[in-house]
Amino acid sequence: MIVLLGGSGYVGQAFQAELQRRQLEWVSLSRASVDYTSPDVLTDYLRAVKPRFLINAAGYTGRPNVDACEVAKTECLAGNALLPGVIRQACETLGVPWGHVSSGCIYTGCRADGSGFRETDPANFSFRQNNCSFYSGCKALGEELLVDAQKCFVWRLRIPFDERDSSRNYISKLLRYSTLLEATNSLSQLTEFVAACVDCWTMQVPFGIYNLTNPGVVTTSEVVSMIQQTGLSAKEFRFFRDDAEFMQLAARAPRSNCVLDSGKALAAGIRMSTVHDALLRAMKNWVWE
Amino acid sequence: MIVLLGGSGYVGQAFQAELQRRQLEWVSLSRASVDYTSPDVLTDYLRAVKPRFLINAAGYTGRPNVDACEVAKTECLAGNALLPGVIRQACETLGVPWGHVSSGCIYTGCRADGSGFRETDPANFSFRQNNCSFYSGCKALGEELLVDAQKCFVWRLRIPFDERDSSRNYISKLLRYSTLLEATNSLSQLTEFVAACVDCWTMQVPFGIYNLTNPGVVTTSEVVSMIQQTGLSAKEFRFFRDDAEFMQLAARAPRSNCVLDSGKALAAGIRMSTVHDALLRAMKNWVWE
Repeated sequence: MIVLLGGSGYVGQAFQAELQRRQLEWVSLSRASVDYTSPDVLTDYLRAVKPRFLINAAGYTGRPNVDACEVAKTECLAGNALLPGVIRQACETLGVPWGHVSSGCIYTGCRADGSGFRETDPANFSFRQNNCSFYSGCKALGEELLVDAQKCFVWRLRIPFDERDSSRNYISKLLRYSTLLEATNSLSQLTEFVAACVDCWTMQVPFGIYNLTNPGVVTTSEVVSMIQQTGLSAKEFRFFRDDAEFMQLAARAPRSNCVLDSGKALAAGIRMSTVHDALLRAMKNWVWE
Repeated sequence: MIVLLGGSGYVGQAFQAELQRRQLEWVSLSRASVDYTSPDVLTDYLRAVKPRFLINAAGYTGRPNVDACEVAKTECLAGNALLPGVIRQACETLGVPWGHVSSGCIYTGCRADGSGFRETDPANFSFRQNNCSFYSGCKALGEELLVDAQKCFVWRLRIPFDERDSSRNYISKLLRYSTLLEATNSLSQLTEFVAACVDCWTMQVPFGIYNLTNPGVVTTSEVVSMIQQTGLSAKEFRFFRDDAEFMQLAARAPRSNCVLDSGKALAAGIRMSTVHDALLRAMKNWVWE
């Protein structure tokens, strides 16, 4: 059996659909039934259940966006920094292999040569750099707690999207925001992301960190062009003049915009379609909420 | 009634002695009986008990010293960064006034003019500066979670000592270490520190941050001279050549050595003896373990 934490969230629901599709037996653990944030409770539960694998899709993302984490710092720290450490302790005590959904938002920009950050590059959008949102700082701290973790995958998700309209979907966000920020990013098509995560386990690739983004990069205006080309929206999109105007008018916390290199996953045999293909497919199969 | 968290620790035991001395009614809460790290459990407990005040003396310090926190990062983050935020939530929900034992180790050095750091100075030995031990980083993050907290005292302790030989006592550490690091520091005589904390509440000084160090500063070699003068030890003390040798030979995490200004507490009517008087008194009344 597989134990899934955070199964009710945007990412967690996609994991449930993927596990269902593969007919893998799993249980989605709710905090109301088992408080898995408590090291003792989680260890006792895992000792009793003896799972083959554990997936941590739990985290605190902030509603309606990451700015909420600047206020709810305790929840953000608990869900994004401490929880991975607690799960590590429980899983290592019992020898349970597991995977943690981390985030590419611990980076900003790209490598000096213009290429994407690799798994060996240290986070550069973090408390350590003092340039980050509280959310990104907590996510980076969460990865710090997993350094040298045994039997552990760290799966980096980056701006998820899929074909279902939702408040967490990047395409939906672009469709709804009154004004957009031009930026260059790597993205993760959600269904492909969770499939890649499960592949890591079923294909027995080496434990460690994996950037699970669709190969390629896109700019905000490119995605807008695709939205217009596919007829998803006929509205006129407006852009902020620059980052400074965005920060002044619309944001509280600085945003991570960054490029990740997903070559390590690819070399391990984990396939994801190119970001442009994935975006077009989502737009063509779009289902309004 | 007063609720005390962390009552079994070095600082917590001093709080118990002080509350006893003042004949204030208190309960020392153990995590085994009530898991106060859980927001729901703590809130339910406080709602039932309705305390007049809460003291948080719980924290993770690492044994035998702060280097242990570089390994036990999850425990350190949980005890020093997250717990204050959890307590804040519970206390603010119920309107319970409280005080948190923080640490001066979120600073290094002194102000540019040579004076001590004041409560309004931002931490400069922290994750944000990327120059700190994991312990100091967590302590600073804990204070960040308490910014604008209601009815909350943040009491900064700094290298505690008293007249009882113990592994947590600064004087005992100097007596036992084979080689010492020369540094300039503010210190807190523990009995005076906890008395000052309780004074903050009984004297109804304004809520907020207070540096609760004994006025004045001392160097390691000054303390060693006092140890020799008072006859506490006749051994020959050796010193590391410099910080670099200390880091190379004896330490894993960088240490905070710093000067704090305790003028705010003094102005509020909170009295502590000078650091030299407090040290001499402890040495003259020394009780071996």
